[in-house]
Amino acid sequence: MSVERHYDREFVRTFFTSPTAVEGEDDSAKMIQSAAQLRGLKAPDVWVPDNEDATAPSMRDEGVENIISVVAEHGAEFPGEIHPRMVWHRERPTTRYQGFQHMLQIANPDNGAVEHIDGFVIPEVGDIDDWKKADEFFTIVENEYGLEEGSLSMSVIVESGEAELALGDLRAEMGKPSNNLERLFLLVDGEVDYSKDMRGMTPTGELPSWPELRHNTSRGASAAGLIAVDGPFDDIRDIEGYRERMIDNRAKGMIGIWSLTPSQVVEANTEPLPPQTGSWLLTAGDTDIELEQTNGKHIYDGDSVSLSVEDDDTHHLVVGSDEHTLDRDELRSELLKMTAYVPSMDDIVDSMEEFEAAKEAGKGAIAMTQSATLVIDGVEIDIETDRMWDEATYQAAMTPIALFQDVYEHRTDQHDELEDRYGADVVNRATQVGN
Amino acid sequence: MSVERHYDREFVRTFFTSPTAVEGEDDSAKMIQSAAQLRGLKAPDVWVPDNEDATAPSMRDEGVENIISVVAEHGAEFPGEIHPRMVWHRERPTTRYQGFQHMLQIANPDNGAVEHIDGFVIPEVGDIDDWKKADEFFTIVENEYGLEEGSLSMSVIVESGEAELALGDLRAEMGKPSNNLERLFLLVDGEVDYSKDMRGMTPTGELPSWPELRHNTSRGASAAGLIAVDGPFDDIRDIEGYRERMIDNRAKGMIGIWSLTPSQVVEANTEPLPPQTGSWLLTAGDTDIELEQTNGKHIYDGDSVSLSVEDDDTHHLVVGSDEHTLDRDELRSELLKMTAYVPSMDDIVDSMEEFEAAKEAGKGAIAMTQSATLVIDGVEIDIETDRMWDEATYQAAMTPIALFQDVYEHRTDQHDELEDRYGADVVNRATQVGN
Amino acid sequence: MSVERHYDREFVRTFFTSPTAVEGEDDSAKMIQSAAQLRGLKAPDVWVPDNEDATAPSMRDEGVENIISVVAEHGAEFPGEIHPRMVWHRERPTTRYQGFQHMLQIANPDNGAVEHIDGFVIPEVGDIDDWKKADEFFTIVENEYGLEEGSLSMSVIVESGEAELALGDLRAEMGKPSNNLERLFLLVDGEVDYSKDMRGMTPTGELPSWPELRHNTSRGASAAGLIAVDGPFDDIRDIEGYRERMIDNRAKGMIGIWSLTPSQVVEANTEPLPPQTGSWLLTAGDTDIELEQTNGKHIYDGDSVSLSVEDDDTHHLVVGSDEHTLDRDELRSELLKMTAYVPSMDDIVDSMEEFEAAKEAGKGAIAMTQSATLVIDGVEIDIETDRMWDEATYQAAMTPIALFQDVYEHRTDQHDELEDRYGADVVNRATQVGN
Repeated sequence: MSVERHYDREFVRTFFTSPTAVEGEDDSAKMIQSAAQLRGLKAPDVWVPDNEDATAPSMRDEGVENIISVVAEHGAEFPGEIHPRMVWHRERPTTRYQGFQHMLQIANPDNGAVEHIDGFVIPEVGDIDDWKKADEFFTIVENEYGLEEGSLSMSVIVESGEAELALGDLRAEMGKPSNNLERLFLLVDGEVDYSKDMRGMTPTGELPSWPELRHNTSRGASAAGLIAVDGPFDDIRDIEGYRERMIDNRAKGMIGIWSLTPSQVVEANTEPLPPQTGSWLLTAGDTDIELEQTNGKHIYDGDSVSLSVEDDDTHHLVVGSDEHTLDRDELRSELLKMTAYVPSMDDIVDSMEEFEAAKEAGKGAIAMTQSATLVIDGVEIDIETDRMWDEATYQAAMTPIALFQDVYEHRTDQHDELEDRYGADVVNRATQVGN
Repeated sequence: MSVERHYDREFVRTFFTSPTAVEGEDDSAKMIQSAAQLRGLKAPDVWVPDNEDATAPSMRDEGVENIISVVAEHGAEFPGEIHPRMVWHRERPTTRYQGFQHMLQIANPDNGAVEHIDGFVIPEVGDIDDWKKADEFFTIVENEYGLEEGSLSMSVIVESGEAELALGDLRAEMGKPSNNLERLFLLVDGEVDYSKDMRGMTPTGELPSWPELRHNTSRGASAAGLIAVDGPFDDIRDIEGYRERMIDNRAKGMIGIWSLTPSQVVEANTEPLPPQTGSWLLTAGDTDIELEQTNGKHIYDGDSVSLSVEDDDTHHLVVGSDEHTLDRDELRSELLKMTAYVPSMDDIVDSMEEFEAAKEAGKGAIAMTQSATLVIDGVEIDIETDRMWDEATYQAAMTPIALFQDVYEHRTDQHDELEDRYGADVVNRATQVGN
Repeated sequence: MSVERHYDREFVRTFFTSPTAVEGEDDSAKMIQSAAQLRGLKAPDVWVPDNEDATAPSMRDEGVENIISVVAEHGAEFPGEIHPRMVWHRERPTTRYQGFQHMLQIANPDNGAVEHIDGFVIPEVGDIDDWKKADEFFTIVENEYGLEEGSLSMSVIVESGEAELALGDLRAEMGKPSNNLERLFLLVDGEVDYSKDMRGMTPTGELPSWPELRHNTSRGASAAGLIAVDGPFDDIRDIEGYRERMIDNRAKGMIGIWSLTPSQVVEANTEPLPPQTGSWLLTAGDTDIELEQTNGKHIYDGDSVSLSVEDDDTHHLVVGSDEHTLDRDELRSELLKMTAYVPSMDDIVDSMEEFEAAKEAGKGAIAMTQSATLVIDGVEIDIETDRMWDEATYQAAMTPIALFQDVYEHRTDQHDELEDRYGADVVNRATQVGN
């Protein structure tokens, strides 16, 4: 039996939290009122009215009432899923009981919210037995109100060493008849509290990057048919840093990320989708520089690499403080090593279609050629590179396309923005390829 | 139930090993004689008379006698804990039996040492069943001499793939009634033998850095309420390398490290505590340079970054071989990206106190501002950065303070040195904050 | 009981796959015909006629016949082990049944191939219960034909999150009486399909490097007495990249690697063995440059480091854009930090012999000195460094020597090439040392 995903969305790009009750405002529900009305790229795939850390302890009962009234009013129209975060703590039974009572209240059909609630987020879980305690409360809530068992999905925040270890047990535990852990949906890393639990410290007080935690979360999601989401990126003004974190996450198979603001939601909804235009990267020292494209040529205008020509046999290429004297072929070969191509959505769809045609014609592998004219210090050089595509390459290319198709299917409110980005033709072909 | 730590110290900075019997000396106990008399920053948190690898096999029976006589004489006065390392091997029953006999001898109350012995260190453990064999010998020793069961703590050296895997089982196994694994204390990585067991090789013969092992050890400690300690750093002259390793370890939540010499003990006792003065780091290329502070200004005098001014709208900033032309605001924003502040103990205590006052006044989050005047090539620029502090930031800042408080409580012999370092006022406030 | 390896070879450097049946060729067995006749450094330690991904689905029945005829003809003479790869998939029972039928056919003694078959490779395994299904088919095949139970070894391709998790269970599962998992041999990472299963993505479409997977595979091998092998390196023209990957793998204890071509086999058979001559590395910025040796001096002729002398107290050393003014001793000390020595096979054998002699004379640790004359911009500087050798250093140095001895014992077809490389004297001493 394959790993089945017991939920609608195959991918989640964005996990956006909003405080449920803010003190000192005319309307304490202000933040979730406005969040509930986000649409398009500003609206997250999963919206989390946050009745835990984002909301002061004294405001949490009021937060529950706010969730109910806002979701009852706006839930039907909200384009993403809705998963309020409850209070919970592996070491505090009274907190767990409070979370249970809040769930009972929100899920009461008389309150008119539960039909728009997709599930709840449980923070601060411990080992697998603690996850089962939360699951049991979901089951009781469902039975109390005649909801189908397992219909409320459960997402957890992994923010302790114990919970990280539990990620290895999910696949075996989820099948047991004494629980309903098949309701699991998102595995979300919570690096702030995880750092505290692990006693991690850095000189500047920044959070450690915890690569192994993110790997283990992604692997746990893969093995149990769930979805992995990275934790919050605190410096909301550092867009570049947020993007780099997402690139690093995707190389670990973790495609979703927490968002703290609608601007972060836009970034995180957009970034994992292939770019509208392809681009060449030039690696100089440690950094990859994206070359600027003008009239079909790719231009480097930084200072880390310089190039001058004496004659066809004598090119001087200076990279940092290293100087190479090269003939034209050696120059090409050196530049090929220093460059890489980032394919656009159009490029990926093209290559996949080409491979599908070749496969139909009985070929198992074909070469895809990528060529470009680079311009460095005014010197033009044509480069060309082949990549072999076989079934495995094709399948790997399918990951961003599958993501796109999932977004296109579930987020009709983003269709206009996607067509603005890619053009109607590319969007159309991208929804067809690979099926 | 929370993860409880079954021992006195919440933190261990230093794990210092000394050979128990050296051949060819007048007094074969010379090394442990002098180690037992270390005080203050030169004395480790955990002292390990090492009857395994540091002592020749032929000298190990004599080593046991030396441990007994030295600990009986100096143990009462020694300011840290005392945990002799016994012989043990997951693949050699005779070695295990020898280790058991040595423990019986050292723990015999007639010999006058055991009242100063806090536990034993067991090297070369295998999977969890092997740890249980060692634990059973501890239990027998305790019962033989009427000591309380569990009173001798057990620390292990993780130096095999099997032992690394066992780190994931500890939390579940420690609760079982058929063992006394609650006696566990330190999880210490032993990278030399681990490299052999894993067949790790590097071109120069240096040890691999094994980041995943250190993560797994730290996580195992977190999940089971134990303390993680990194292995020996062989190049005892490379102080800078030792410090860098400790910074890397702390970002993994591994605060303790092995020390081979009293100089390393001083480094490792000092390094994890916050610095006495704050400093600004400037990142140029790959390296962080600590700026020199003179008259309240922070001065960069390296060659990797240069700065010149034409007028307020035209600053030339050269970083490596990249040149930027910037106006004053762009320059500030560029420098903010390149700099980071390392807070002092005083800074941390200040911020925590400020947050505690804000919380009492009903605020959940406040901005802490950090400003400085940088000087690069004689050009002065004022920069200023805000950081939002909420409950989670506060809790994370608590880790180094909790370490300090633990040191202050358990190491009265270091009080003078700590007051010399920080001043009596900061020490006093640091012991109060957060409680 | 120690971890016993249930197979002949202690090390496997190379895992070379060949398509079993190619469409459109006169002889569809052409590729395995030529692979079966490779000898010396071009012949892999483990040869894998690949009836899975390298062979089109429609050709796989013919592939089985080709395996049988080629192995029956050439198997007796082939210098490495032979492990055909069968079809298998954790989520597809019909694929598993097809793999079983192919194994029954190949192992039928009437077909004359099985006496030269060492085992089978099973791809796309899932969790440990899926491994047991494959193992059960091996057992049935063995019993059907009167082969000894466990005589056919089983290697797996780890290419899913579930299989990665299973690596932690092997040691406990292999001892159970209800399976024959002691037949396990190689744990091979398959990063292409693993990336798909984990949903890993990179901007350029390159594979993520998956460091944690490789660690976990290597650790699983260490804990269960098996051998870890890294997956294919697709860019077969990038020899430098292939070598760098192997260096990174060895630092993780993963000594074997997949090879796609005989040229990659030569590289992967050679690279893990110590070099024939030692060399000095100079670290400048991020890169280690191997110094060129001429007349016993080690010459740096790059542009990243420059050196000039005013007088004995004034040397200008420029590294990147940092300039140091140093006296002769400071210069030596600075250069020592920037250099490292890569020992040759001869150096390693020398040091081990020297340590063995010292140990016999009752010494536990001795200093090994390494000295050299460096030449930078025409300036000569003598440097000298000591390294302490103790039993642990000696044991760690044994890893490459044990590899060499294993190769020498099992690959007599490579003796000539090894003597050409190292000289007969070094080869002879290297086969003796450490025993």
